Amino acid sequence: MISVTILGAGNVATHLYNAFKQSSNTTVKQWFNRNINTIIDYKNDVDTIDSLEQLEDADIYILAVSDDAIAKLSQQLPFEDRLVVHTSGSVSVYDIDKKHRRGVLYPLQSISKDAKIDFADVPICIETIHKKSFPLLRELILSIGSPAHKINSDQRRVLHLAAVFVNNFTNQLYRIGHEITESEGAEFDMLKPLILETAKKIQDMSPYKAQTGPARRYDKKTLKKQIKSLDDNKHHQDIYKLLTASIQKTHGR
Amino acid sequence: MISVTILGAGNVATHLYNAFKQSSNTTVKQWFNRNINTIIDYKNDVDTIDSLEQLEDADIYILAVSDDAIAKLSQQLPFEDRLVVHTSGSVSVYDIDKKHRRGVLYPLQSISKDAKIDFADVPICIETIHKKSFPLLRELILSIGSPAHKINSDQRRVLHLAAVFVNNFTNQLYRIGHEITESEGAEFDMLKPLILETAKKIQDMSPYKAQTGPARRYDKKTLKKQIKSLDDNKHHQDIYKLLTASIQKTHGR
Repeated sequence: MISVTILGAGNVATHLYNAFKQSSNTTVKQWFNRNINTIIDYKNDVDTIDSLEQLEDADIYILAVSDDAIAKLSQQLPFEDRLVVHTSGSVSVYDIDKKHRRGVLYPLQSISKDAKIDFADVPICIETIHKKSFPLLRELILSIGSPAHKINSDQRRVLHLAAVFVNNFTNQLYRIGHEITESEGAEFDMLKPLILETAKKIQDMSPYKAQTGPARRYDKKTLKKQIKSLDDNKHHQDIYKLLTASIQKTHGR
Repeated sequence: MISVTILGAGNVATHLYNAFKQSSNTTVKQWFNRNINTIIDYKNDVDTIDSLEQLEDADIYILAVSDDAIAKLSQQLPFEDRLVVHTSGSVSVYDIDKKHRRGVLYPLQSISKDAKIDFADVPICIETIHKKSFPLLRELILSIGSPAHKINSDQRRVLHLAAVFVNNFTNQLYRIGHEITESEGAEFDMLKPLILETAKKIQDMSPYKAQTGPARRYDKKTLKKQIKSLDDNKHHQDIYKLLTASIQKTHGR
């Protein structure tokens, strides 16, 4: 049985808590948050605390806090030589105070508060400074059914950057699709099957091969017409032009 | 039984042919293509022809050809007052010669040659000049199991534009994710669950609400770090900056 203490109460902390609670190989020893009211609903299920002095022994301490808070919180922990990990895609493992055994568990998934998460669909990237910390973290990840991947800092940095493109930026394109349709009396709902199919298609086919549409076809007439139709929204027009240029750069002829 | 003749041999033509063949309410009368070799494999299943003079009576003629070819092909058809439709998102229904009864069947989906299509997931937009042409087209669409939507030209124009954003441009972001990961020794495959989840999430949640990440959080430190890491690819950097600005415009504070 692996004992875990969670620090923080954001989306990642909450979803991890729920996953660990359901695992038969893992127990949540304590859940810390400065503002105890945020986790008050859980007080009958776990030892909820708001003071670092109350922290007890655990196999792994997970700092699921905002990027900026990781370094300082790790310094304030009133112990040393224990396994302390953060969950950020962009913070160095060396930001954790060196008095600890240090590591990272980076869930490569978009974790919103209200969306359900199936951890089987959440690849978790493991990074450790010392090799011997790795097996326990791997066991922890497997205990919640997630695929575990050993990666180094460079790979994590790059995966996080790529995730911004395929998740945050993609979602913003959905948002623009929503704005365009709703502003002119069409239904965004009609685009949902297309959105899903676009994501499904590249599960087995490279994005290069999957590309279609006027930019890929160098269909000048349609490109011109669509750019003109965005005349009253320069911002959308700029995005249209830049991504069209990007597709044509990729599929240059 | 509705009889259909298909003109053209691209992705849309081929997938429609296969769907009609499987439907018990529809029969494909003839399949026309200037280059008959492209459809030679089907010659035992359907009357394949390469001359417009060979065209026989059918309830509906579907011009599934490139945008630029629609007007001219419609003029060349050696008959009049029959129901002739095109399948383009961006071409006016009035581009079809006025000697015909005119309409549009626009499949709002990304139809690649090699990808399987389930027409239940392909909303088809129907537009007709004369009201009385509508019911037959609707019946045809329902016979292949697709949701049928009555739309007007403005709505079709807007849906096609929005489709470019959520499909072609999104796919290009996947491509950039592929380039970024593979160029630095990380695996694009690890991003696939995230890509799927991003598309699934907005099936029940607005893209506005679904947004996460450094741009949405106004996380200046991470934004700066990621922009800097793209210094050696100005093109990716420009896209990063523009889409970050777009997210912040949407989620202004």
